[in-house]
Parts: sequence; C-alpha cells; structure tokens
Amino acid sequence: MKKWCDNAALLTLHGNTVGMVSKEFVVSAPGKIILHGEHAVVYGKLAVAAALSLRTTLHIKTIHDKDDVLLHLPDIGVEVGWSVPEIAAAVALPVCDPEKPAPPSEELLQKLKTFASIPHDSADTKTLALVSFLYLYCAIVGSQKTLTPLEIRIESKLPVSAGLGSSAAYSVCLAASLLLHKNLISASGKWSEKDLQLINAWAFQAEKVIHGKPSGIDNSVSTYGHAVSFTKGSEPVILSQVPSIRILLVNTKVPRSTKTLVESVKKKYDKSTVVMSAVMDTMEAVAKECLILFEKMYKGKADEYYKQLEELIYINQQQLDIIGVSHIALEKVIQITKANGLCSKLTGAGGGGCAFALIRPDVPKETLDCVIQQLSLEGFDCWETGIGAEGVTLHV
Amino acid sequence: MKKWCDNAALLTLHGNTVGMVSKEFVVSAPGKIILHGEHAVVYGKLAVAAALSLRTTLHIKTIHDKDDVLLHLPDIGVEVGWSVPEIAAAVALPVCDPEKPAPPSEELLQKLKTFASIPHDSADTKTLALVSFLYLYCAIVGSQKTLTPLEIRIESKLPVSAGLGSSAAYSVCLAASLLLHKNLISASGKWSEKDLQLINAWAFQAEKVIHGKPSGIDNSVSTYGHAVSFTKGSEPVILSQVPSIRILLVNTKVPRSTKTLVESVKKKYDKSTVVMSAVMDTMEAVAKECLILFEKMYKGKADEYYKQLEELIYINQQQLDIIGVSHIALEKVIQITKANGLCSKLTGAGGGGCAFALIRPDVPKETLDCVIQQLSLEGFDCWETGIGAEGVTLHV
Repeated sequence: MKKWCDNAALLTLHGNTVGMVSKEFVVSAPGKIILHGEHAVVYGKLAVAAALSLRTTLHIKTIHDKDDVLLHLPDIGVEVGWSVPEIAAAVALPVCDPEKPAPPSEELLQKLKTFASIPHDSADTKTLALVSFLYLYCAIVGSQKTLTPLEIRIESKLPVSAGLGSSAAYSVCLAASLLLHKNLISASGKWSEKDLQLINAWAFQAEKVIHGKPSGIDNSVSTYGHAVSFTKGSEPVILSQVPSIRILLVNTKVPRSTKTLVESVKKKYDKSTVVMSAVMDTMEAVAKECLILFEKMYKGKADEYYKQLEELIYINQQQLDIIGVSHIALEKVIQITKANGLCSKLTGAGGGGCAFALIRPDVPKETLDCVIQQLSLEGFDCWETGIGAEGVTLHV
Repeated sequence: MKKWCDNAALLTLHGNTVGMVSKEFVVSAPGKIILHGEHAVVYGKLAVAAALSLRTTLHIKTIHDKDDVLLHLPDIGVEVGWSVPEIAAAVALPVCDPEKPAPPSEELLQKLKTFASIPHDSADTKTLALVSFLYLYCAIVGSQKTLTPLEIRIESKLPVSAGLGSSAAYSVCLAASLLLHKNLISASGKWSEKDLQLINAWAFQAEKVIHGKPSGIDNSVSTYGHAVSFTKGSEPVILSQVPSIRILLVNTKVPRSTKTLVESVKKKYDKSTVVMSAVMDTMEAVAKECLILFEKMYKGKADEYYKQLEELIYINQQQLDIIGVSHIALEKVIQITKANGLCSKLTGAGGGGCAFALIRPDVPKETLDCVIQQLSLEGFDCWETGIGAEGVTLHV
C-alpha cells in the first residue's frame, strides 16, 4: 500500500489520455439504526432497522495522468494509492463475473492482504475496509485490460464503529460507484430493482471481507433506504412505505463489544428461559406494532401516532434494560431526554454505543437545543437527524 | 346498632350464669400481598399471593352478665353491641346449616342491614364488615337457643383499604372464632384440612357481604397462610412449601381505585393487544419462575436465590409500569430502595397503595434503617415484616 500523501512521487504517470472517456460520479448511501428487535433477533424474533439521514458520499472519477487507483478516506485519516499494473500482477484477473457477486476465495483474500501489506489475521475494520475495496475493484472493474485508473474520495457524516452501519454505507457506495464505472448499472439517476440487487449483493461481499459474517441487514438498509424488517434465516423485507421521522441520535462513545453483550444475554436467557423468552416476545410485538404504526403514518395523519411510537420506544428500552444491555451512560441519555419530555432507547447492541430519541413534531426548538446542550455536557455526540431516508442515490 | 361506649346503660343484663360454660379463644390470621401477577390475572394469567407476617388477632369470649353480642374494633374506632333476643327477633333462625357455608339470601341481608340501621345501598366496607359479622353470627352460632351472648375484640397490624387483605383476615378470624365457639372445628390448636375448609368457606361468605364479588384469594391466603397461586376460573392452589422471606412493606397512602386501574389497563390492552398480551405473558412467566425459586429456597440454600427473586421483582415492576399502573409515589419508593441496594415493586392494583422491597439476608440493619427513614420522610408508612407466614392460628 502506498501512502497517498507521502508517496506522490512514487505514483507512476501514464500520459496517454487519447480516446479515453472521463467518467465522474457522485453517489451516497445512508447509515442505519435498529429501531426495534436488537438482541431479540438472535432468538429468531423480528427486528426493524431504518435508514438514517446521515449519509456517506463517494466521489469517483477516472484519472488519466497516473496508472493508479487512489483512495481518499479523510474521515479516518487514510489516503492510499496503488499501482494498477501492480494490482493486476498480484491478482489473477478476472476474479469473477461482475454480474454474479461472489465472495473472494481464501487464496485471493490472502493475495490482496499481502499486496496491501496488511497482516493476514488483521481484525481491524478500517484496514479490512481497504482489502474490501481492493476486492471490489478487482472483481467489478474486472480484467487486466479494464482495470482502469481511478480516484475515489469517500466522506461520511456517520461515526465509525458506533453501530450505525458506516461500513455498510461505505460498501454500498463502493459497489454502486464501481458498477456505474463499469456501466453495469444505469447512470440515469434511477436504478431498477435489478440494479439495486446487484449493488446490494456486491456491498454484502464487501461487508463480508470487513466483518466476516455480517447479517446483510446493514447493506440492505443502506441500499434500499426507508426501513427493513428482518428475521434470522430469512431475506430482509424492504419497507418502502415508511414515514420520515425526526430523531435525535446520541453517541455515548462508551466502547462496547457486541459479541460480549450477545453472550451475556445468552447466559441470562439460559438461566431464566421462560421469563427471558417472554421478554423477547415483547420486543418482537413492539417491532410488529411499530410496522403497523409506520403504515398508518405513511398513509396520513402521521402526527397522531407519535405518542404510540414513543410508547413502543419506552417499552422496548425497559425490556433491553431487563436483558442487561443498558448502561449507565445510556440511562443518562434516557433520563435527560425524559426530563425534557422526549422518549429514547438504546439502539444496536447496547452496553454503551448509541441511543435515539424521537422528535415529535410538537417539540419546540428550544427544548431540543436544551436537550442537546445537556447531552453534550455529558460528553455525548448528538445529531439532529431523521430516519426513513432514501437508499443509495446517484447524484446527477 | 348500639354504640357500645355510649349505650352501655341500654344493654340488657341477664344474670343467669348457672350451668353456663365460659369459653374463650384467641385466634389470628395473616394479611396478604400479591407477589406477582396483579392485573395479569385479569387476563387469565397465573398470580402468586403470600401471607404477611402482619396479622389480625381476635379475642372471643362468652359473657354471662348481659344478653348481648359485643364487637370491639378499636383500630377503626368501632365499639358496638346488639341485644341477642333482638337479633333473634329480627332474623328467622336458624338461617342455614353451619356446616354448609352459604351466602345470605337478599332478604336476610336487608333484614340485617335494617336491624343494624345501615343504609341498604351502603358500599362502605367498614359498615358492611358489621353486617358480615351479624350474618356469620346468625349463620354459624345458629338457632335462637344457641345464639349465645359473646364479646369479640379484633385488633390488627394491617392497615385497612391498602390492598393487604385486612377484611379477609377479619373474616377468617371471625369465621374461625365462631366455629370454635360452636365446637364445629377442633379446639386442640391443630386444625384438619376439613376444619380449614370450613373456616375458609365461611370467611369467603363474609367477604362476599363486604365486597360483593371477591376473588376468594385473600381469604384463602389468610386461612392457609404461606402462599397461594391462582388463575381466573380455577381454585387457588395452596403452596405450603414456601420460604420465610423478609420484606419491607411500604404504604404510600395514595388512594386509588382498583376498578379504575383495571379499566385503564383494559383500554391499553385493547389499543395495543399484541404488545400488552406479551407484557402479560412476561408477568406470568415471572410468577411461574417465582414459584420455582420458592421451591428451591424451601429445600435449602435459600440465600443463593435472593438475587434472582430481586430480578423477578425488578422485571415485574417494569411491566407494571408499562401497563400504566405505577405512580409517582411508587416510583419514589423504588428509587429510594434502589439507591440503597434494595429492589422493590408495587403490590396490588398500583396507582398508589403499597409496594414492597425484598430484604436480602445480607442487608445491614443500618441500610434498612436508612431506607425506612427516607421513606418515612416522604410520608410513607413502613413495616419491616415477612411473607410466608402461618395461616389462621388458634393461640392455646
């Protein structure tokens, strides 16, 4: 891997631009939050995730003055460049049919890691994000002849490692941009179901490189937007008739391990199965009720249902507390929002991480400012944002 | 009705004590708390009630110097006396077979109310308690010849109208004492199952006079002691293998209407049936788990299970909060106990009324004193008491 900034001198220059077409695209894709069903989903219950208005934006363009592929990820301080011929030399191209998304073979994965000077056992998602880029670049952009020089810049409003699907938004943007670059999906600004399926499937392959065994939910939400309901072992159900709802997203910044939390819930579940499975059932009932309310809200008179949405949030937070995944920082968020008449719950694995509060249409700006100020004083990051956002979008 | 204190001069004196045997008994019966399943029981779920160490004590003795029946209820400021011949004249005796408990006919009920100068539509339980006494006296003590002069004094550690089964403890004591007086149950100090059934059945008749349509749970707990599990439409199940557990009982003294609370829960249930029925299932699961823990605790190593009992209390309180029957005063109790490392929940209908906290064996006296002090400062009444107490008892 070449450090883009430090190694500009190393970049090989290829002057031949005759007959070359300059392509440039800007795509964006949303992050996600889990509205209801986190943890319960592990026990076969329905969960609902929604697309966040916080997005990742990718700028892709062909370059003609260098035979390199350049990746700028300013948010995480990464600026890298690789020589296209060196990539081609390191990898036997083509690796697959770009219209038939598939995971990399173990052999290819190791080759890519070696090429990018990444330890083979690395579990660092930021590093693995580079490997996933290299894989998508080789797999989609394809054969040695077509492995064109490119410059890609990705910026995001999403905090990383906060359970908000930042890596999925990254993967979806990458997949969409490379498929666009290869004319494998429409550049009209309106994608067909088949286009979206292809984007989503490639984004899922990228996610696998980064996370090992992702659920596929995050990339689905990021691709299709709006909301998605899902149950273990079944395909996610895309819900396009979802109201746009304002939320206050709060990152407690307390680090947590999803794996440890899932294990601790399992322990509790095994110890007290009858009670815990009833609690999981309540979580599923909440998720189902939420979908019913969304449908009603989408059809009109949305304002009428905010109180009921708040009640579901309240109920679910109580259940999440019972299964032991709340945290003193999350309790603080809930307490501060409650004191100001807002209702919040943790989202994702819990034990720290993020929470969100619903912003009812009748909440005055002053109240919201006051809540944000109080939360900020606790050291939490706040975003006044929304859910139900559009999925991956080509900005034409 | 004669006022005992004011109308002593009105009492008819019957001096003939020749051949009369003086009988004197002291009986006591416990109050109850609902441990788990309040409200859920309305939806067909299992509930568990336990006998409280707070008891009602009754002192009964034959009197020979007056032909009266005298009732002293100092706790509620009632001291009344009725002339035995006047009772007999007002009521056609015998009213029933004292070994076959039955409710009073509507006609008899009206006669008793007229005799005792009680408005026929009175819903005041204190007043109706006098009617229920008169009924049990007529029905059990029996025919005109055997309607002997008696003096009864009843005192209780139980607050009235606090959902702690004070009227059931009163009814059980009355039934037991009158059955003892008539030699219809053993006076040995050890009652057979048949004796207890007879006491319980008569107490239930008394409860009907007081409450209209009681569930029969309160008198069963008061009769049999320990704990009782029950489901709507089925006979209560007596649980005799119950550990003795210390609790801190707290009366917020916030008045509430069980009927209104049950109705408000029904409204919530009808509006959000899927979620609310899952919540009710959790309450039932908690009640069932509690019974399993009780069995384990009874068999030994009780100390190991206190944390799990606390968890059930915590879970149930969350669910009760969700169905909307908590109250700011109850929240205060929960908050104060929690801040001192204790776990509490409301008991009964909620919306005020009582709560209880488990007192684990490792809770230092100082902590408990501190909690009691803080709760008292809020204006709440506290009792350091226990559950799993003996049922109706003859003190020989």
